[in-house]
Amino acid sequence: MTVKTRLYVDQPLAEGNQVSLTREQAHYLFGVMRMAVGGAVALFNGRDAEWRGEIVQAGKRGGVLECSMQMRDLQMPPDLWLCFAPIKKTRTDFIVEKATEMGAAKICPIQTDFTNSERIKQERLQAHAVEAAEQCGGTYVPEVANLQKLSAMLDHWPEERQIMFCDEVELGAATSLASARRGPWAILIGPEGGFSPTERIRLHNMKEAHVVSLGPRILRADTAAVAALTVWQAALGDWAS
Amino acid sequence: MTVKTRLYVDQPLAEGNQVSLTREQAHYLFGVMRMAVGGAVALFNGRDAEWRGEIVQAGKRGGVLECSMQMRDLQMPPDLWLCFAPIKKTRTDFIVEKATEMGAAKICPIQTDFTNSERIKQERLQAHAVEAAEQCGGTYVPEVANLQKLSAMLDHWPEERQIMFCDEVELGAATSLASARRGPWAILIGPEGGFSPTERIRLHNMKEAHVVSLGPRILRADTAAVAALTVWQAALGDWAS
Repeated sequence: MTVKTRLYVDQPLAEGNQVSLTREQAHYLFGVMRMAVGGAVALFNGRDAEWRGEIVQAGKRGGVLECSMQMRDLQMPPDLWLCFAPIKKTRTDFIVEKATEMGAAKICPIQTDFTNSERIKQERLQAHAVEAAEQCGGTYVPEVANLQKLSAMLDHWPEERQIMFCDEVELGAATSLASARRGPWAILIGPEGGFSPTERIRLHNMKEAHVVSLGPRILRADTAAVAALTVWQAALGDWAS
Repeated sequence: MTVKTRLYVDQPLAEGNQVSLTREQAHYLFGVMRMAVGGAVALFNGRDAEWRGEIVQAGKRGGVLECSMQMRDLQMPPDLWLCFAPIKKTRTDFIVEKATEMGAAKICPIQTDFTNSERIKQERLQAHAVEAAEQCGGTYVPEVANLQKLSAMLDHWPEERQIMFCDEVELGAATSLASARRGPWAILIGPEGGFSPTERIRLHNMKEAHVVSLGPRILRADTAAVAALTVWQAALGDWAS
């Protein structure tokens, strides 16, 4: 039997383990999907591979699944952060969804000098990442960090983490990632107005930063996020099979 | 003075030419943007570069702009078609927007064996492409074709046009575009359920088709469109400066 429905659960998964459902998950499985005892879903928790979970209890407010067999291995993404300046709500949601699909390990909303948005709803964005992983077949859910200031983040930047700095302005200085070294990386995408001169000078002076061009057209921040993730995955990530 | 507002007009642009506004454009400029006689906008028509247009008449139902000087050259995209199977409305809109930003020359909605959508609103999608070009600073608007069957399209496929075939299933057969030849190309993105076995066999047998992998994760059709455009532009398009 093919298992189509996938659920993220923050509980240990192993043969015979029982997993309890939240009220929302129970409503989804038994109310929306009309599943019942004996039915099966795919379970993942971002740590223990993907398991086949058989429904052993089904109620209006909860339910229990039992792990019967491992279906797929855990597929960890490369150690890549996506740092971006939050924009309009729907486009921010979209970036989180796309970063999950494209295999970012961590999603970091940043406040830049030209960022309009003063705050984000971290929990909502994290739920978006879970939903995207459920839908795209991923076994890993990237962590969505709290909003932080770019300047503060750079003050404590980990030395070993390279930065793919997508600077619209400095097309001439762009480099290729082809010869860059693998390891921990972060992609940095600016807000619609770009980075401020102060931020740009600071980034250009960081030895971890590699300026990368995303072509001759101006891209919206959400397009730039997917394009940058593609360029990075193809050059240094897990696309090169 | 910086000119921030950009308008697409389907009229010839040259020094001294006068351009008349539609009712919607007049409402946007004079009602929403509060502009008046003497103000300036950027005009483009996809053929004649970008011109500075000064407002010489402003009314509720129309207005007239006069081309005063050329601001930027026409930037044509490479000869690339994006062929995709339309999905849910908002995601189809999104694909058209992204294809415009990413520099596709033509956007071809296709009906595949597994496409759910039986029809599209071509005019609405074309208007989306215009809006995306206005907003992203493009001087070219890709044509959105009418929905056509993939099988019929392949029956009359132009021999010289190479196909970047994004086949989720056949990851092992994937090739790199690095050594592929430049010239006319088309990207082919399947619907959420992928291509049918018949379609896949036919495409794999076409000498124009190059199977390209978009990584180990399953991408939604809209993500796949942006990722595929990125891979193509970086390898064969106008990203390689």
